[in-house]
Amino acid sequence: MRTITIKPAAITHNLNQVKKLAPHSKVLAMVKSNAYGHGVAAVLPALEQADGIGVATLAEALEARQLGWNKTIGLIEGAFTADEWQQAIDHDISCVIHHAPQLQWALENIPPASSATRVVWIKYNTGMNRLGFDAEGVIAAAKQLHEAGYRLILTTHFANADDSAHPLNAMQIQRFTEVLMTLKESVSNDIKGSLCNSAGIVNFPQYHYDWVRPGIILYGSAPVVDKSATELDLQPAMEFSAQIIALQTVHADNAIGYGSRWVAQQDTRTALVSIGYGDGYPRVVTEDAYVSVIEASSNQSYQCAVLGRVAMDMIVIDISNAPEDIALDSKVILWGDAPHVDEVAAHAGTISYELLCRLSIRPKRIQA
Amino acid sequence: MRTITIKPAAITHNLNQVKKLAPHSKVLAMVKSNAYGHGVAAVLPALEQADGIGVATLAEALEARQLGWNKTIGLIEGAFTADEWQQAIDHDISCVIHHAPQLQWALENIPPASSATRVVWIKYNTGMNRLGFDAEGVIAAAKQLHEAGYRLILTTHFANADDSAHPLNAMQIQRFTEVLMTLKESVSNDIKGSLCNSAGIVNFPQYHYDWVRPGIILYGSAPVVDKSATELDLQPAMEFSAQIIALQTVHADNAIGYGSRWVAQQDTRTALVSIGYGDGYPRVVTEDAYVSVIEASSNQSYQCAVLGRVAMDMIVIDISNAPEDIALDSKVILWGDAPHVDEVAAHAGTISYELLCRLSIRPKRIQA
Repeated sequence: MRTITIKPAAITHNLNQVKKLAPHSKVLAMVKSNAYGHGVAAVLPALEQADGIGVATLAEALEARQLGWNKTIGLIEGAFTADEWQQAIDHDISCVIHHAPQLQWALENIPPASSATRVVWIKYNTGMNRLGFDAEGVIAAAKQLHEAGYRLILTTHFANADDSAHPLNAMQIQRFTEVLMTLKESVSNDIKGSLCNSAGIVNFPQYHYDWVRPGIILYGSAPVVDKSATELDLQPAMEFSAQIIALQTVHADNAIGYGSRWVAQQDTRTALVSIGYGDGYPRVVTEDAYVSVIEASSNQSYQCAVLGRVAMDMIVIDISNAPEDIALDSKVILWGDAPHVDEVAAHAGTISYELLCRLSIRPKRIQA
Repeated sequence: MRTITIKPAAITHNLNQVKKLAPHSKVLAMVKSNAYGHGVAAVLPALEQADGIGVATLAEALEARQLGWNKTIGLIEGAFTADEWQQAIDHDISCVIHHAPQLQWALENIPPASSATRVVWIKYNTGMNRLGFDAEGVIAAAKQLHEAGYRLILTTHFANADDSAHPLNAMQIQRFTEVLMTLKESVSNDIKGSLCNSAGIVNFPQYHYDWVRPGIILYGSAPVVDKSATELDLQPAMEFSAQIIALQTVHADNAIGYGSRWVAQQDTRTALVSIGYGDGYPRVVTEDAYVSVIEASSNQSYQCAVLGRVAMDMIVIDISNAPEDIALDSKVILWGDAPHVDEVAAHAGTISYELLCRLSIRPKRIQA
């Protein structure tokens, strides 16, 4: 059975790791894109000890409210229209304000003082060059919002926090710190700051400020280039698995799969596994790509290479490493404890975030 | 709004193209993997004139029955267990038999003569080396199944039909033709044949046999390397779109997005689009990747390059080509008429099939 197993206990463990790394900051746990593909309904209960959650769209915010999340919800791209701003007010959602139209909606339509929407995350573009005001613009906007009665959190987003040595980090930190200081002096000392995503939490502990915004780290992947998930004591929150549906010996000089990409150098024992890109396993992987086959009786795990092109519904693996009598129906782990999704991402030339988000609806979803 | 628009009329048009290409064959329309990501519920009504549908899992077969599909359903990897074989009988599903355990289940548990499960697709491995019996095995199995009262369709799958010049095609065709002739002579003249997927339908018209099995061609993508979807008069069945949520000028020498991959050579007008790999747009694309921005008042379309790394929730595009007053909320087409999903796939180093299947649940789904 094509199965995605979510492990809420792992998410809670990872949240606790974040709290150890950033003990003096509040935690906005990112659950955008269906909780990085894990399923927001499965994930929210595991995040009970977070101070808030972050989402990318109003629909995601409303879904979290419907699921009973009654603490802070941060809408990280803000309202897209004046109507969305009103809906944010209706559902006590705190919005990012990153450009002039959003500022205007906020000034024209001020929520009650008790509303969570009176908390605004005002976005400063320190070098990502996607969203945000420049220094002058952010200071002007902050003044207007403060005068209108909003409570402010200055925020920005790192472009290269995964690589602590990247020169842009220091520049982004400096710009952010300077503007935050200016705002505290010239507007209000109560203005808060939020700078760090997962990578920033690990790499820049001295700049955690009032709110940290962990994302991928909650799901058990390493957010930085020089430390593995294991070194950071993170637990993978997802296991993606399937089963062996056929066994075969492919004779020497025969090719496997579309494009006849992999040619057997010798007679090779292979297994068909009921998984493919139609489930979310990446179609293009390097020759290093492997899966783990679990022998049911012993619970022993065997690393088996993926052979040839990944198809929509199946892959072929080399089971030379596994016992001769490995059974049909044996469980095959695409990612989980081993291989870790970070490894699979490396084999697919991408990052774990993408693999987790781009799962299809076909696999059955369960919780461990 | 992140939106996937499905066009059932395009699917019906493409089905009619298949019927023109293969006028003497029955059509098993492939709807596995949620109809190549299009949504099986949206697609089935458009396939009313197909003779049957093909799925990869029993769950997909049962879903199609629940949706009211009462013609042939072919389970192309067959039953995974004896229990699944029984369920196939219960729901009149025709199965592929590709290895000894499936043969055994079929011989031990024979459905009523009137059942569609009495039709068996027996799989011959002619060179794909994934599923199927060898020549000797397929002839022996066919004899046993025929004697047990099954009606047989000999089937195999091309590894390289997209490339008509690939030498394996001729070999697969020859092997298939020889075994089919042997079976007709030595077992029953009523045994049918099924060889061609979408690419085979286009490239090998003389070998269409009794059933063709179109997949990607139904959804409007080109199945062969040397003819475009337009040249084959296919219509894309999906439009994937989003909207502009912010406008900005990025100054010369500034970088955009994660990894600071794209650096502005001059001041550049950019737009933020509310789409990312968290929706299913591929994270890694070449510098040729573009989207179409639609100006609402004129309905004019402007090609705009994707700048820098695709993020989970947004991309940045270069709107230098678009009018100065292009509005917030303007519609942006990721794929549809232009760019065609085949182009986006080329920019992402993959095939359209993968892009279509790996869409997330976040975009809103509608029908045109």
